[in-house]
Amino acid sequence: MPYRTKLLLLLLTALLAPAALASGVEHADPVAQLALALALILLTAKLGGDLATRAGQPAVLGELVAGVLLGNASLVGVTVFEFLKTDPTVDMLARVGVLLLLFEVGLESTVGQMMQVGLSSFVVACLGVVAPFALGWGLGYVLLPTHSAYVHAFLGATLTATSVGITARVLKDLGKSTTAEARIILGAAVIDDVLGLVILAVVSGTIQAAASGSAMSLAEVGWIVAKATTFLVGALVVGLKLSPRLFGIASRLQGQGVLLATGLSVCFLLSWLSSQIGLAPIVGAFAAGLVLESVHYRDFTDRGEHELEELIHPIASFLVPVFFVLMGMHTDLAAFGQPGVLGLATALIVAGIVGKQACALGVLTPGVDRLTVGLGMIPRGEVGLIFANIGLSLRIGGERIVDTATFSAIVVMVIVTTLVTPPALKWSLTRIEN
Amino acid sequence: MPYRTKLLLLLLTALLAPAALASGVEHADPVAQLALALALILLTAKLGGDLATRAGQPAVLGELVAGVLLGNASLVGVTVFEFLKTDPTVDMLARVGVLLLLFEVGLESTVGQMMQVGLSSFVVACLGVVAPFALGWGLGYVLLPTHSAYVHAFLGATLTATSVGITARVLKDLGKSTTAEARIILGAAVIDDVLGLVILAVVSGTIQAAASGSAMSLAEVGWIVAKATTFLVGALVVGLKLSPRLFGIASRLQGQGVLLATGLSVCFLLSWLSSQIGLAPIVGAFAAGLVLESVHYRDFTDRGEHELEELIHPIASFLVPVFFVLMGMHTDLAAFGQPGVLGLATALIVAGIVGKQACALGVLTPGVDRLTVGLGMIPRGEVGLIFANIGLSLRIGGERIVDTATFSAIVVMVIVTTLVTPPALKWSLTRIEN
Repeated sequence: MPYRTKLLLLLLTALLAPAALASGVEHADPVAQLALALALILLTAKLGGDLATRAGQPAVLGELVAGVLLGNASLVGVTVFEFLKTDPTVDMLARVGVLLLLFEVGLESTVGQMMQVGLSSFVVACLGVVAPFALGWGLGYVLLPTHSAYVHAFLGATLTATSVGITARVLKDLGKSTTAEARIILGAAVIDDVLGLVILAVVSGTIQAAASGSAMSLAEVGWIVAKATTFLVGALVVGLKLSPRLFGIASRLQGQGVLLATGLSVCFLLSWLSSQIGLAPIVGAFAAGLVLESVHYRDFTDRGEHELEELIHPIASFLVPVFFVLMGMHTDLAAFGQPGVLGLATALIVAGIVGKQACALGVLTPGVDRLTVGLGMIPRGEVGLIFANIGLSLRIGGERIVDTATFSAIVVMVIVTTLVTPPALKWSLTRIEN
Repeated sequence: MPYRTKLLLLLLTALLAPAALASGVEHADPVAQLALALALILLTAKLGGDLATRAGQPAVLGELVAGVLLGNASLVGVTVFEFLKTDPTVDMLARVGVLLLLFEVGLESTVGQMMQVGLSSFVVACLGVVAPFALGWGLGYVLLPTHSAYVHAFLGATLTATSVGITARVLKDLGKSTTAEARIILGAAVIDDVLGLVILAVVSGTIQAAASGSAMSLAEVGWIVAKATTFLVGALVVGLKLSPRLFGIASRLQGQGVLLATGLSVCFLLSWLSSQIGLAPIVGAFAAGLVLESVHYRDFTDRGEHELEELIHPIASFLVPVFFVLMGMHTDLAAFGQPGVLGLATALIVAGIVGKQACALGVLTPGVDRLTVGLGMIPRGEVGLIFANIGLSLRIGGERIVDTATFSAIVVMVIVTTLVTPPALKWSLTRIEN
């Protein structure tokens, strides 16, 4: 039997047998169903990753596509995998997974290294917001002439988002996460999260103000920017100062696993704090990774303990694939079939990709490949969907800001920009090497 | 400032500040609250573990006691930690933690090594069921003369449980998990889980049959035993045969983290299967650890990858403390204050401890310390509580099999047998060494 066939058979029996059983039987201990779900997701991730790697692509593309297939199996009548999509713990573990991914990527860089590319990141982030916003607005104006200007503005806002998870993972898969390109993209993604907050506040604030007749307060927007900036600067400055002292105290604690627990706690606390400010928790996780440096915990490594990266790595390689397989699973292929969607979707995809290429102009650091930076900013991922979901709930003069067809078009745009990024980045990075 | 005071201040600020904030603020991303919870639990675990280690005790005792303090802080008006007890993801992660603990312990032994002490384990398990059952029944007869024989039998059944988590963890904390004593205890705990199933089925079946007037079917009990035995023997025999082939196929998969994902998948699938049979999921996790041997995945280690144990360790050291801190938190100290409880509780504790010492007589392997085996079988943990909870829901002739006072006494017994085991085992193991 050829190898590929064997693998396929293994996949089928491994996945279908327990899942088929799962549907009929009750579970005494609630962890049993979670255990089954995690086993299925891990097997899916590794089989998908294998096929992608063989095809010369980053493993994450295989995880996403395998997830898409599993998540849309119900379209051809296979419903045994549906419980994976609705299990609340799987969802939470995926979210913890992306926190750990950003924490891990952050650990590979220092605050100093990020500062060196800080100006580039800032300009890249600004251009990556302005250009897609303008393109999206224009697109709405041309393609949805009967809708109000608010709808056009919201479409622009949806295109500004950057989902850093995909890019961070591709860079890790290819061993490129400490390059200048990677740092510029990661820094820009963090700044983009702050800018996204502002845009969301302004656009939805304006719409709500218009709907209720009251005026949108500029002070409110100022307050959001001030909070977010204070958090970021504070976390980096205070964190960098406290980190050696924290590890100093921690190194005096007796017992095993203190270094790992301290590192994880800092990651989790900053993620939480970041969310309290209104930023994405991954911003806090990334900041935590940046401020924790291996020289700070020399007390631990001097006595023979592993580096924090090495300790985090197995946990991340358990939970990160859960995030990407689940992201794939939540991809609704049915959106492609909605009538009248594909035209708008195609336009959005072009605007989304072309718009982010403006980022390339923002790279001020010499010797950096501009195209890689532009491509790395393409994926919209879950951030675009969050915007779209908010749009679904906003109304002005009885008209929904984002109607069902527009929502489906945004979903298609998110799917395509997410799936197109791994091969594009891989191509671009290979191009530099040659 | 002396070291202890510093630590205490660190504890207070680290724990109280975010928890106090948490109560008032809404969370945008649901992972934020989980992140906060995990950070608090990890800090609590490490501080508790530090104090226990300094006091010459296994770290797990510190985690349990720290959990008890946090979980009962509401008795003195501090309610900010209550969200940790009710967070469903924290609960699930704790359950995954104990799966990983048993998987890790299982990885340290082989099926062959377990078979060598198999007979001892079997006799130890049987004695550890018969003696506490008889003592519990007698105790009920003497102390609760107005209750029916069913109540007395149920009390006996509750005393037969063994919670292997505590003992496994203590043995790991002390680096003793590959000793003959450890293997006998672990094997006995697995067999005890099968016996516990049978007892629970017989006792509750008899009670339900008596209540409904129908007869209890012996065939049913036979079916339960057959299923459980088939699963255990099947998992070990088939698992041992399939494991090298599975890793052979897995080693041909390209991409990172394949060994870890394969190991975790086997652990999770067997945990799930075990639960489908009616056994505790940890039995499946332990069996998975036993059948996976490092010679089976030499293809991976030969090309420089870490051993499975090394890969699982960081994940376990993240999630295992969550289990023990949460077990501590769920300990309801208010049970001690119930009127009329302490007398019955004291009697149950004595019967529970003395009864399990009969296990010492079952050790047939030469050179094994009998007292250590007897002490290792003491903790009742969550298994005793599961029994008690079932008793709460059973009624015969309008009388509840387990009333509130009896339930509280069982809770106290579970708390004391759980907390007394770490120091007792530590003492016993140190005694052998000298």
